[in-house]
Amino acid sequence: MATGEPTRPATTGTDPRPRTPVAVLGLGLMGAALAGALLGSGHPVTVWNRTPGRDADLLERGAARADSAAHAAASAPLVVLCVLDHAAARGVLEPLADVLAGRTLVNLTSGTPEEAAETAAWAEARGIAYLDGAIMATPQHVGAAGTAVLYSGPGAAFDEHRDTLLRLGGASAHLGEAPGLASLYDTALLGLMWASLAGWAHGAALLRAEGVAATRFTPFALHWLGAVGGFFEFLTPQVDSGSYPPDATLDVQVAALRHLVHASRARGVDTTLPDAVGLLMERAIAAGHGGASFGAVTEVLTAPAPAPAPAPAP
Amino acid sequence: MATGEPTRPATTGTDPRPRTPVAVLGLGLMGAALAGALLGSGHPVTVWNRTPGRDADLLERGAARADSAAHAAASAPLVVLCVLDHAAARGVLEPLADVLAGRTLVNLTSGTPEEAAETAAWAEARGIAYLDGAIMATPQHVGAAGTAVLYSGPGAAFDEHRDTLLRLGGASAHLGEAPGLASLYDTALLGLMWASLAGWAHGAALLRAEGVAATRFTPFALHWLGAVGGFFEFLTPQVDSGSYPPDATLDVQVAALRHLVHASRARGVDTTLPDAVGLLMERAIAAGHGGASFGAVTEVLTAPAPAPAPAPAP
Repeated sequence: MATGEPTRPATTGTDPRPRTPVAVLGLGLMGAALAGALLGSGHPVTVWNRTPGRDADLLERGAARADSAAHAAASAPLVVLCVLDHAAARGVLEPLADVLAGRTLVNLTSGTPEEAAETAAWAEARGIAYLDGAIMATPQHVGAAGTAVLYSGPGAAFDEHRDTLLRLGGASAHLGEAPGLASLYDTALLGLMWASLAGWAHGAALLRAEGVAATRFTPFALHWLGAVGGFFEFLTPQVDSGSYPPDATLDVQVAALRHLVHASRARGVDTTLPDAVGLLMERAIAAGHGGASFGAVTEVLTAPAPAPAPAPAP
Repeated sequence: MATGEPTRPATTGTDPRPRTPVAVLGLGLMGAALAGALLGSGHPVTVWNRTPGRDADLLERGAARADSAAHAAASAPLVVLCVLDHAAARGVLEPLADVLAGRTLVNLTSGTPEEAAETAAWAEARGIAYLDGAIMATPQHVGAAGTAVLYSGPGAAFDEHRDTLLRLGGASAHLGEAPGLASLYDTALLGLMWASLAGWAHGAALLRAEGVAATRFTPFALHWLGAVGGFFEFLTPQVDSGSYPPDATLDVQVAALRHLVHASRARGVDTTLPDAVGLLMERAIAAGHGGASFGAVTEVLTAPAPAPAPAPAP
């Protein structure tokens, strides 16, 4: 297996442009999906994994196997890394500093904004163009037109490899130069996902108490999610301007939320989630936003905790 | 103004079918929107409000004014009620028992499932066909093709007036015979809305700490909401079957959620919401679902609280 030599650019299908050779380091479920998407769109791909035996399917589809991470990295101007976590990523990268110099490293390993900043500083000091990325999809959706991979780091590096990176997810985007942005968007979007999933699960539990199956409830939840997205759009300029003219006031909404809490208790459904959301609404109301829209909740999410009242004079 | 006499059915536009006369009781923002949507699709509409002066615009658009709720109700086979709350609704309805007998009453006043059941029992005892409904939209979206009004109560009453009711919202549906279902779906869907809004607000606050405007974040949140809907669909049959093979396990997700909590604390963003969702995940993990999908959270939402440990023998 030839390793260490640059792979020749290839073209594919009706698109005559040559495809950038890519090295993919890490062949877990996600790494293998990334390599597969690149192979599927005609890129020469060299793969490497710390433990062997993960590449049979990819080799059959035309990938080249490298016998070391360094040989893989040396084969391509664009190196994609996707391993378990930040510690594993740094373990792979440290010995590769020399071979990565002058290449573009795209790190799709999950991590925190702080970890992204640390790796970015390491890369910058070694002349490596570094993009940190977050894949907003499960492996089976990698490469799809609707899949977003979010990138942060030098815009020039993203622009140079835009065509290739869009083949990992057609809805991908470059968020900005700060290396931690992709990770921060990722965690913010996962937070939105968990909150929405918990809200849906709560609704399903509530209706199950009346004998309604989730299969019956979910189509209504999906239709409603479209309206919820409209509320995001309605509230967005309010959050940026700090002015919250209501569609429905927090005072009215918190009264309706108490109905939800009551209906949940009456059916033996746990109220942890609505209690938490109600607490946020009530804090916004206590801060004077009772006549404002739900957008005013963002005001108390970042407000410092109130100072303790001074002890009364003796 | 002629009141108390059945209004003559009208037809409109290219649709030759006669339009059922409708009485609309209550002309708050929502009641006026309902009357407006019916007028706009060619129904003869008679309106009444407890306090006068709310109907000028509707009269100009062709509505008839009734000088009492009884006169309004007597004018139409279909009577729509939309007032402030259950107490106000019962106040309007009690004196109308005789005139409503033999007609269909659609109550779109917000209320609880228990209130719906109470009014349904009252109506049934008086020979009134009673549908309870919940409008899943703000007044300006009443009458739109994508708007859902959810109905529960006798299917025959819904079927008889289906065409008319769909003109209040093209995505409307009849949920079942139990009168409280519309209210319960309503509160479940509002719970999903608040959870999603809070998740979005949390993300916006997190990104604002890094100088990213909500205007920049929301398009990603909206795109991601489509993926979240896909997760609902993925988890739905799992919730109904009680078997939760994972796309991502709760063990993995709770670790990622801790990153969100950490990233929030590091930026001074309140963690009430992710803490609550994390608590639900941890309870599901403690119940043995660490290797399961997020769907297993529904198991602990309805599980009874663990019994207190017996006191040790003295």
